[in-house]
Amino acid sequence: MSLKANEKNSIESGTFSLTDVVSIADISRKEIEIVLNKAKNLEEMDKKEKSKILENRVVASLFFEPSTRTRLSFETAIQNLGGRVIGFADPGVSSFKKGETLSDTIKMIERYADIIVMRHFIEGAARRAAEISQVPIINGGDGANQHPTQTLLDLYTIKKEFGKIDGITIGLLGDLKYGRTVHSLAYALAKFNDAKIYCISPEQLKMPKEIIEDIKGKVKVIETDDLNKVLPELDVLYATRIQKERFADEKDYNKVKNAFILDAGILKKTKKQFRIMHPLPRVNEIKTELDLTPAALYFEQAANGVPVREALLAMLLGKKKVI
Amino acid sequence: MSLKANEKNSIESGTFSLTDVVSIADISRKEIEIVLNKAKNLEEMDKKEKSKILENRVVASLFFEPSTRTRLSFETAIQNLGGRVIGFADPGVSSFKKGETLSDTIKMIERYADIIVMRHFIEGAARRAAEISQVPIINGGDGANQHPTQTLLDLYTIKKEFGKIDGITIGLLGDLKYGRTVHSLAYALAKFNDAKIYCISPEQLKMPKEIIEDIKGKVKVIETDDLNKVLPELDVLYATRIQKERFADEKDYNKVKNAFILDAGILKKTKKQFRIMHPLPRVNEIKTELDLTPAALYFEQAANGVPVREALLAMLLGKKKVI
Amino acid sequence: MSLKANEKNSIESGTFSLTDVVSIADISRKEIEIVLNKAKNLEEMDKKEKSKILENRVVASLFFEPSTRTRLSFETAIQNLGGRVIGFADPGVSSFKKGETLSDTIKMIERYADIIVMRHFIEGAARRAAEISQVPIINGGDGANQHPTQTLLDLYTIKKEFGKIDGITIGLLGDLKYGRTVHSLAYALAKFNDAKIYCISPEQLKMPKEIIEDIKGKVKVIETDDLNKVLPELDVLYATRIQKERFADEKDYNKVKNAFILDAGILKKTKKQFRIMHPLPRVNEIKTELDLTPAALYFEQAANGVPVREALLAMLLGKKKVI
Repeated sequence: MSLKANEKNSIESGTFSLTDVVSIADISRKEIEIVLNKAKNLEEMDKKEKSKILENRVVASLFFEPSTRTRLSFETAIQNLGGRVIGFADPGVSSFKKGETLSDTIKMIERYADIIVMRHFIEGAARRAAEISQVPIINGGDGANQHPTQTLLDLYTIKKEFGKIDGITIGLLGDLKYGRTVHSLAYALAKFNDAKIYCISPEQLKMPKEIIEDIKGKVKVIETDDLNKVLPELDVLYATRIQKERFADEKDYNKVKNAFILDAGILKKTKKQFRIMHPLPRVNEIKTELDLTPAALYFEQAANGVPVREALLAMLLGKKKVI
Repeated sequence: MSLKANEKNSIESGTFSLTDVVSIADISRKEIEIVLNKAKNLEEMDKKEKSKILENRVVASLFFEPSTRTRLSFETAIQNLGGRVIGFADPGVSSFKKGETLSDTIKMIERYADIIVMRHFIEGAARRAAEISQVPIINGGDGANQHPTQTLLDLYTIKKEFGKIDGITIGLLGDLKYGRTVHSLAYALAKFNDAKIYCISPEQLKMPKEIIEDIKGKVKVIETDDLNKVLPELDVLYATRIQKERFADEKDYNKVKNAFILDAGILKKTKKQFRIMHPLPRVNEIKTELDLTPAALYFEQAANGVPVREALLAMLLGKKKVI
Repeated sequence: MSLKANEKNSIESGTFSLTDVVSIADISRKEIEIVLNKAKNLEEMDKKEKSKILENRVVASLFFEPSTRTRLSFETAIQNLGGRVIGFADPGVSSFKKGETLSDTIKMIERYADIIVMRHFIEGAARRAAEISQVPIINGGDGANQHPTQTLLDLYTIKKEFGKIDGITIGLLGDLKYGRTVHSLAYALAKFNDAKIYCISPEQLKMPKEIIEDIKGKVKVIETDDLNKVLPELDVLYATRIQKERFADEKDYNKVKNAFILDAGILKKTKKQFRIMHPLPRVNEIKTELDLTPAALYFEQAANGVPVREALLAMLLGKKKVI
């Protein structure tokens, strides 16, 4: 199936219906496209013009859990749009320690800021905040649960590089059991047409069965532990970190830790337009010898966080909410 | 007694004479009114016009002790006025650790910033800073001592809700022994006409005698431990947290801890325009079932911190000091 | 020797050739003069005009090691030029903890920001960052190694006070063994004409021999431990802190700790235009009784950090780098 002409038109002229960005599950394919188009539009916009979008607006950036990439790209986005930032990068400087509930913090901040960006260590925190807040909430990650702006920038990166997302063949590599990034990306790809997903992981870190069940009618999903075999077919290899903390037994970790370290050798087996993505930070799962090859898309991917977050901020500004 | 016509005129056309805001004791009734009028004026001002007030100005926000509400509302105020913020939210990132005196820190920062906002854990720190600094100092709290901007926003909240402060009947509830907020508010109300203050607390946490002595000729003060009895008479109930750390013996704490928890039931006994205030954060002393009732004024109170702090910043800017 | 007329012209019309500011060793006398002239120019510039220089630009301020003076004066400089700041004041809030390399951090941040200011605890970190980054790097201190903007502001302070740097007689006082500030300043003075440097320290904290060797053909260098004897000859006494941590044996520390505490008494022996400088923070090495005397130049020196850092930011903006 493909988009019909009038559906395409409605995308181009479409408006983003959401008042908060909490989970990629809330966002339809049509609305994903609207976000990606808006991001492209902002990336091409004159700096001065762009800096009027959040002029005289305040955006709260509340990081109850530390982050570099997400926080700095949000704060860059806010400032590129001419907005002002208030907030904290570290829960230690907040009233949290005095026992204030998230709900009370939000009820205060919504009176100071026009939009709230938040990262929280508790799963569901952003949803709860969105239910309470009169101003839009953007989820910058809630525990192991959702990180929708990461998924949107992943999709933007694919679209920018390949011209489309439909029909993409992607390998998800590494820790597919605990990685929220690959879970969300899998669900998001299922909203597009004819994507093919290889889930490449050691036995202990396989993609959860319920996710496979949820998406397998919508995309082709193949599970494997043999990266080399599937490499030639991939457009994108999406690598993730394997975290030692995930293994009860260090022996199990040592068995798999080096299984999926990518080096320049893999490029002998790949398509010409093959690209490597990674949510970063990496530790050793992508050797730096790959950084200067055309396959390395991960730094561009990180950079794409800025226009995508700009797009969300621009589209959520002034949204009326009924609480 | 009431204000005479020409005193009213002088308020309207009055200028704020202070060069620093260190203690509510320094600020006359007339000047409190000037602050509150300026805050109202700023709250109604067009955003763009407002953003010119601190254009190309830098305000230092120095928090030697963490804070969320005070810091973020100051930083919102600074940015709403178009100013830029430098500073720290956490003493750990300052030279403090290298043994620098407050005096030396101020002598540096006064050369970077046009106004200094500071919170410090040492009582008297703001007064000392004001004596040294060539630029205006605003005290955002010095230990258990003073927090004048909190008192000003409390007064602004009362005036906005009731149209006036004169003649208000207010209950101060909870920890009246250690709470700097209620001490300052009591002194401030004594500058107005015909206020009536009920001091409602357990025996162990009574308002200090010297404060009662200081204010009792100027306002009516009645001490009680029976909230229910005085409720019907109150315009405002100003609740505070009872902190466990204040009790030497945990048994004493357990006796009083639930004595003054407010729930929706109290509204059966109150006046129609009865309102609850609280400096926040609360722990459990106001049940959330009250939040959506018209009596809940505490979130609006927190929000009022922004225009009141804007007013102080706007009025102190460019003040010449003789050091 | 002195500058010839056409060399002077080329300075006035000169452009700053560097694309990064990593070490004072990289900067020629001519380019130091260009920086100092630019700083003077910026100090005299109208605030509004100045605020257009970094309009719609983002500068990253990455402090992997805490700092007050350096960070706040950089952030003041950035904001005075109309730029926006992203970054962190504390490595605890960065991905560093997740094991990200400096190289990967820089490859991300260079895509968010137009210039990167960084302080790092590892010697050589700024050089490494400059090799990687496509945008200019300014070193705000790398371990015990380099702190070039401190040296530039020291030179600016001397020039502003004395009208010139050539021919200055300066005493470097205190910890000359470990103090990076005095090392860099000594090298920088060697680029000027006819400076005379007294190295005044206890035996244990003498200026390293290799530095003396490097500069002694270019400036007069005299080592002594007798401050009183050389005082009458000095234009500037540059004091530094003697850190307890530098001594293996506390007894050795106790012997020297009070050897070079400056008090108002020294002014009886000094020239009329004698000035005291100090990189700050001081602990007790300059008594506060000196603060209000004309000799106290250290707070002005700290203030001079702002125009000097503004000059560097303004001159590095938009520099094309070949990586």
